[in-house]
Amino acid sequence: MTPGACPPGLVPELVDVARGLATAAGDIARRHFRQKVAVDTKADDSPVTIADREIEAFIREGLARQRPGDGIIGEEYGIERSEAELVWVIDPIDGTRAFITGRPSFGTLIACLAGDTPVLGVIYQPIVGDLWVGATGQPTTHNGTAVTTRACPKLAQARIGTTSPATMNDGEKAAFTKLSAGALDTIYGGDCYNYGLVASGFLDVAVDCSMQIYDYAALVPVVEGAGGRMVQWSGAPLGRSGGPRVLAVGDPALLAEALRLVAG
Amino acid sequence: MTPGACPPGLVPELVDVARGLATAAGDIARRHFRQKVAVDTKADDSPVTIADREIEAFIREGLARQRPGDGIIGEEYGIERSEAELVWVIDPIDGTRAFITGRPSFGTLIACLAGDTPVLGVIYQPIVGDLWVGATGQPTTHNGTAVTTRACPKLAQARIGTTSPATMNDGEKAAFTKLSAGALDTIYGGDCYNYGLVASGFLDVAVDCSMQIYDYAALVPVVEGAGGRMVQWSGAPLGRSGGPRVLAVGDPALLAEALRLVAG
Repeated sequence: MTPGACPPGLVPELVDVARGLATAAGDIARRHFRQKVAVDTKADDSPVTIADREIEAFIREGLARQRPGDGIIGEEYGIERSEAELVWVIDPIDGTRAFITGRPSFGTLIACLAGDTPVLGVIYQPIVGDLWVGATGQPTTHNGTAVTTRACPKLAQARIGTTSPATMNDGEKAAFTKLSAGALDTIYGGDCYNYGLVASGFLDVAVDCSMQIYDYAALVPVVEGAGGRMVQWSGAPLGRSGGPRVLAVGDPALLAEALRLVAG
Repeated sequence: MTPGACPPGLVPELVDVARGLATAAGDIARRHFRQKVAVDTKADDSPVTIADREIEAFIREGLARQRPGDGIIGEEYGIERSEAELVWVIDPIDGTRAFITGRPSFGTLIACLAGDTPVLGVIYQPIVGDLWVGATGQPTTHNGTAVTTRACPKLAQARIGTTSPATMNDGEKAAFTKLSAGALDTIYGGDCYNYGLVASGFLDVAVDCSMQIYDYAALVPVVEGAGGRMVQWSGAPLGRSGGPRVLAVGDPALLAEALRLVAG
């Protein structure tokens, strides 16, 4: 990961902004969780609730106060100043399907891009209280403690996770099936949680399709700051353009084998 | 659900035993969660850890003290006195794959069979602190508060959940695909959690294959005591024999349509 246009000394200050807003937004998520919230369906058939909208509005207001010149890309309220040197990326509730079915496996994601590169990412699960923070030049932390991925150089030893086969087209499903068939075991569900668990060394591979920038931007610094790698299925980096197919490995030695299977 | 051979006045006392042991065993689960525990593979290729074994041993010891004449069927340590009038069924960690990958979506399950019928079931998730209790003659509770399933008479309105397509053979996968194609939306992962969420009215259908008695016995009273129905794919009840294919619906009006798709 290269720091892009972001002065290294600024990163800790940006991390404080992201962590503060993500955790403060947890109050909104907890207030709406397991309540009978109305679920609207967006143009892409994905669900959205008042919690998604209130959380993103809260984070955007916080950024407007603390970082007024920066750009913002948010899942629900779109793009502002996308040509700014620093652009924040917000997914207020990653895993809205989990949220609306009462599962505490969704997360609030905040990333910051410097030029094309995500220089920090925060994953916050407000019911369990899991907070992963990854940033250029510092080790990824989980609830304040540095974490590292685990060694797993061979796919045959790997536990892999994916959120939903329903997000895959036929070609993606065929590629995923090859990867899964070569792995030790596969678990389903999880959304952003899978990437935090790769960073913490409990899962070896996380793979998903249909990922847009607000789904993946925060995950890259978390995985890579813990020693892993996270890229597109083509092997290309996940910057401002990227997706929709992403792959994270805890052990960089596993990357080539995993990419060969999904790409080939 | 019929009470089998169990005197109704005895049920509250049995519920206290099950709830007390499941929640006390949470200390063991929390001590081992997200630690680097060794994972063994059983004859059926499923994983098992020291946490599964310690929790089941703890619950068996408690039952030996509090209910010495009753039978026990446990996932890890087998069967004792299976011909007793009351037989306890233990799954120390349902969702061992979730447990070993650091996901707080596993659960400790305790059921009690009177004759062929599960008369009580407890689902306890010790990291989040979710406790569902279902028993003959009383409403299902979640963390002490009575819960009910939600109305959802048509599959086209239903959110359905299944743990893993990897547990399905080709025929099961084809049947599940028909069910899923007719539903509003499908989420993956979840294990026992899905059935608690059906009881609480956040999910409309839960469906799984490869379910043995310790996987389903506790779920039936939780779902049915909240107003739902839980049966085999054939429509037959889930008693001492049953599985491996199970289906739970929150709204009984949905049962016939769902069964027609998975059976036909």
